[in-house]
Amino acid sequence: MERLENILDFEKQRGLVPAIVQEEDSKDILMLAYMDKDAFINTVKTGKATFYSRSRKKSWVKGESSGHEQIIKDIRIDCDNDTVLLIVEQKGGAACHKGYKSCFHQILKNGKLEIEDEIIFDPKEVYKK
Amino acid sequence: MERLENILDFEKQRGLVPAIVQEEDSKDILMLAYMDKDAFINTVKTGKATFYSRSRKKSWVKGESSGHEQIIKDIRIDCDNDTVLLIVEQKGGAACHKGYKSCFHQILKNGKLEIEDEIIFDPKEVYKK
Repeated sequence: MERLENILDFEKQRGLVPAIVQEEDSKDILMLAYMDKDAFINTVKTGKATFYSRSRKKSWVKGESSGHEQIIKDIRIDCDNDTVLLIVEQKGGAACHKGYKSCFHQILKNGKLEIEDEIIFDPKEVYKK
Repeated sequence: MERLENILDFEKQRGLVPAIVQEEDSKDILMLAYMDKDAFINTVKTGKATFYSRSRKKSWVKGESSGHEQIIKDIRIDCDNDTVLLIVEQKGGAACHKGYKSCFHQILKNGKLEIEDEIIFDPKEVYKK
């Protein structure tokens, strides 16, 4: 088995690759996050989407606070080996920390952003300490 | 109308934002590329997907060589205003410069990349000078 960390070109973007997350059944785009080598390897090995937080400078398992884990169904890699596409089952039915199904709930209309989607959960309830 | 260039946070990633491209009808992910401010503004104004090439250090209109333009149907922005999702009609039925419909034609299986998709066009024919 080829070493997993050699599959992707992590050098192009200073150690990170973007990872698009798409829901398997609906084919909706849920979010985009970044992976370092460890996050990529852990995603493959555990079958749960794991990312690297650029602000907190550490790995995080999606859903570790909210319970809204992303179970990996397929992992696709682009032609340049520098972007990941995760096909997932979204636990809890919503990926966005603001309570929407998708982080892409803003749509550009006539130069302004409008929100079209519905709130699925209350962030105050889900992220309470 | 709010100035278009203020809608997105271009500072977080040194002047660029990633743009996911999704085909409207099939909901397939076709590619991911990057936009600078000019590419974003031109995409909105022309209705054709325009990106910034990190290797060539300049803007390019998708399909300017191949004819495989991406006609914008919707533009969505994520909750952090740092990622774009373009919903497009893909002219020519294929986005990847290698001749596949999607740049994400490699699938990770047992630690190895396999190609599952079909070649739609011959790159030698489409990109001939």
